[in-house]
Amino acid sequence: MNITAIIGYLAAFGTTVSFLPQAIKTIQTKNTSGISLSMYGLFTLGTLFWLIYGIMSGSLPVAIANAITLLFASIILVYKIRYK
Amino acid sequence: MNITAIIGYLAAFGTTVSFLPQAIKTIQTKNTSGISLSMYGLFTLGTLFWLIYGIMSGSLPVAIANAITLLFASIILVYKIRYK
Repeated sequence: MNITAIIGYLAAFGTTVSFLPQAIKTIQTKNTSGISLSMYGLFTLGTLFWLIYGIMSGSLPVAIANAITLLFASIILVYKIRYK
Repeated sequence: MNITAIIGYLAAFGTTVSFLPQAIKTIQTKNTSGISLSMYGLFTLGTLFWLIYGIMSGSLPVAIANAITLLFASIILVYKIRYK
């Protein structure tokens, strides 16, 4: 693995892991009052586009990171819509 | 511009713009009680690594998106440290 890919995976780790406690907190408390629906919808859509971009541009760190972030963001978005 | 780059810029727009209202809200209210310091620190560091990765891998959407997100995330992080 080259240095660029290593930096990519460090980046992927940082931005992906930071969403995990938010997802867990939302599942446990079902409290989504502090979350903006339109902004989270836009963020989730953006993450989906990053996943497609990562696959099409052949960037594995971008694809993997956004597949995981998309999962977390989708869970939070579904809870926001269901428990608003 | 090819379709991959267009998808990249759509992705960049979605995930970048979604941080703007959070940054504005934090600057105006100085209320950072709902923000986790360790998680935001990790996220900001991750964004910095994405910026470096974008430059090194020659991906302009990744580099531009994360330069802007890094700016927003850094502002929120500074406010969190200052007004905790």
